[in-house]
Amino acid sequence: MERAASALLTDLYQLTMLQSYHRSGMDAQAVFEFFVRSQGPRSFLVAAGLAQALDYLGTLAVDPVEVEQLRALGRFDPGFLAALAGLRFTGDVDAVPEGTIVFAGEPLLRVRAPLPQAQLVESRLVNLLHYQTMVASKAARCVLAARGKRLVDFGMRRSHGAEAALLAARATWLAGFDGTATLQAGLRFGIPVFGTMAHSFVQAHASEQQAFEAYAGACPEHVTFLIDTYDTEAAARLVAQISPGLERAGAHVEAVRIDSGDLGESARRVRAILDEGGCRHIGIFASGNLEEAQVDALERAGAPIQGYGVGTRMNTSADAPYLDCAYKLVDYAGRPTLKLSSGKATWPGAKQVFRRHGPRGEMLSDLVALEGEQDSGLPLLQPVMRAGRRIDAHGGLPAARALLRTQLDALPAPLRRLDEVAAYPVIVSEALDALARQVRASLNPAPRQPAHG
Amino acid sequence: MERAASALLTDLYQLTMLQSYHRSGMDAQAVFEFFVRSQGPRSFLVAAGLAQALDYLGTLAVDPVEVEQLRALGRFDPGFLAALAGLRFTGDVDAVPEGTIVFAGEPLLRVRAPLPQAQLVESRLVNLLHYQTMVASKAARCVLAARGKRLVDFGMRRSHGAEAALLAARATWLAGFDGTATLQAGLRFGIPVFGTMAHSFVQAHASEQQAFEAYAGACPEHVTFLIDTYDTEAAARLVAQISPGLERAGAHVEAVRIDSGDLGESARRVRAILDEGGCRHIGIFASGNLEEAQVDALERAGAPIQGYGVGTRMNTSADAPYLDCAYKLVDYAGRPTLKLSSGKATWPGAKQVFRRHGPRGEMLSDLVALEGEQDSGLPLLQPVMRAGRRIDAHGGLPAARALLRTQLDALPAPLRRLDEVAAYPVIVSEALDALARQVRASLNPAPRQPAHG
Repeated sequence: MERAASALLTDLYQLTMLQSYHRSGMDAQAVFEFFVRSQGPRSFLVAAGLAQALDYLGTLAVDPVEVEQLRALGRFDPGFLAALAGLRFTGDVDAVPEGTIVFAGEPLLRVRAPLPQAQLVESRLVNLLHYQTMVASKAARCVLAARGKRLVDFGMRRSHGAEAALLAARATWLAGFDGTATLQAGLRFGIPVFGTMAHSFVQAHASEQQAFEAYAGACPEHVTFLIDTYDTEAAARLVAQISPGLERAGAHVEAVRIDSGDLGESARRVRAILDEGGCRHIGIFASGNLEEAQVDALERAGAPIQGYGVGTRMNTSADAPYLDCAYKLVDYAGRPTLKLSSGKATWPGAKQVFRRHGPRGEMLSDLVALEGEQDSGLPLLQPVMRAGRRIDAHGGLPAARALLRTQLDALPAPLRRLDEVAAYPVIVSEALDALARQVRASLNPAPRQPAHG
Repeated sequence: MERAASALLTDLYQLTMLQSYHRSGMDAQAVFEFFVRSQGPRSFLVAAGLAQALDYLGTLAVDPVEVEQLRALGRFDPGFLAALAGLRFTGDVDAVPEGTIVFAGEPLLRVRAPLPQAQLVESRLVNLLHYQTMVASKAARCVLAARGKRLVDFGMRRSHGAEAALLAARATWLAGFDGTATLQAGLRFGIPVFGTMAHSFVQAHASEQQAFEAYAGACPEHVTFLIDTYDTEAAARLVAQISPGLERAGAHVEAVRIDSGDLGESARRVRAILDEGGCRHIGIFASGNLEEAQVDALERAGAPIQGYGVGTRMNTSADAPYLDCAYKLVDYAGRPTLKLSSGKATWPGAKQVFRRHGPRGEMLSDLVALEGEQDSGLPLLQPVMRAGRRIDAHGGLPAARALLRTQLDALPAPLRRLDEVAAYPVIVSEALDALARQVRASLNPAPRQPAHG
């Protein structure tokens, strides 16, 4: 199988640490967990990116060219490089299925593997899980805002690079979008692809009428006319005037798109023009710097819009362009570990998350417990890889999309609000709390006393 | 040459438009320009990403597998697909060299090519130019803030995907950073790579002392001890205590790193401990959610810090995670074009930007003029590709880095301030203004009259 990414797509320090582990013979089992420290402006998060994380782990290897590149750096000794050339991921992974609603402080993925393997993969695992979880979490808000109206990912051009564009299409579809404009993402992930014309197309023709007629002739099956290049209402009148003829000639004029101005007001005027012109079947599609807040406002105001193209602000998660997340060592060779760093302290030990539901299936609270604890709740972390081999029991992207739809229905109403942040009860088990106190007490030097008041 | 990216890494609408152009025989020369509409919170921008844009154009092709994928979509006719299979980029490109300081409203890149070619490449060109220009623009602010102190890109893990991580390392180095932690970026772009240890390394050992000694033994050449895992000051005392012995054994203890808490206060206390322990030569390196504002504040306060690791907020450009930029048709078949869309109107015609300097080389103003106009200023757009073949006259990444350093020195003082946004005079030439009025007047239907007051 082709590698999902170069093993050298990592931070240099992973390799300097590995050289030290190699020299010290430190290759016992380590447990690392990936989690989000704080949710920022999100009442809930949506786990996503696991499929790509497992692709990466399953194909991890340092190829001979890369070993040579490392040798040329002059920082690594030959014995270590020989060991690195043979490194594969042979560990176990447990993770929350993609499409699960999750919260800060909950491990979303747990790696149990020999220390060098579990260490090396940190940078790329975080890189993959962070981005899709961030985008899916925002996209789910957009889906709530759109109230069933069509949503299409328009964000390729201002996504941060190629991979972000492709994975944003995936994460937004997982979250309930109807498709993407990004062709390669549609082909790669089996996502419906949408798109018709840009302003340049209209400008390149001598008139809007020539542009619209040429397009309907060349691509008659799905026609959406972009009508805001010059004068939106004039173009709407043109569409009403020429559509009957185009339809008789075999074109399916589905919609007009408005990409600028006051979208709600513009949509109302265009709707009236189309209706008066006998074009009630032609929908209105809106785009242009949209995210959940604008979609929510347009829907609350009853704007006559059938669908939204959501791009830049979605794919960059513009209001919260990163999640404060981390992948931390919680156990080495059977010894639970933590760090005490100011503002970044962690919980020790391999963990499980149990979700408690009410009688109608509604989410009540989550318990973060030690692995092996029993609870009546549903365990969220499930085995997804054993001894480096993937356990594919989850039905892929369509299953993740379906799972999230179910979970959004089970989400407490205050958490579904877009205009304020609500808290969900995430409880730490007594056993985990006791272990944390015990590990802290065992640390040498002892933690400082609290300052005098 | 291997393709830099799939030609299907584009928006679907580029291909539906191309099918219409093909059917209409519209393959005359088109001129598109890439520009930023507004600078947001930046007083200046830094052009970056051109090398990757030219790699993309120079290797553009739709391979047979992709043609088959398109055929399977059922949207495209065989004649068009046959034409697409033969498509290559044969056009001319003029662009502002990487590392040039630029402003909103100025074309940074101009493509002159047969319409289908110039249209198809829009999505990926914007994707490439947008991200690096955004990151380089923010990184230059960080360089101003750091006043010569070492700056290292730490942002891989929370960059938006793999390509963002790699290109952020490139764009920050272009802007004056000293290197990156991202190993693959260092290898690919010839950038110095930095990195030593993570908290997990300290945690995996039975004590900090064991961790530090093991590291210094395994990687003695560049040693930076991470000291905030448990108790920063205790770890600083440990470093002062063990460093003389480690150095006698051959290790070069260069620095300690602090990654949490009040970095300024912590650095002062650690500095005192190291100095008292006879370790004046050991520097302090700071990291943890830094961007230009924090670096500037630490430097203003005289914090005893020799270098900064700057990551997430830099690589996601967290305060402005996208630039409002576009790639717009300005001329087709010799006819200047524009759009009038509310808030997104464009200027017609192929353009040049002239920069006027004062007697000491300081930047005075920029003139956006029509291509072919004469001016005493320095023309910023230069030929970089002719008939699809790259003109490599610019010395690559090191030259771009050197160019920006010169330009930062020429930047008017108010624009160098980090705490407020200052404006720079960007003037539109009389000829360009006249052309825009003429094109607007020629548009049919005529623009509406201004509303009555």
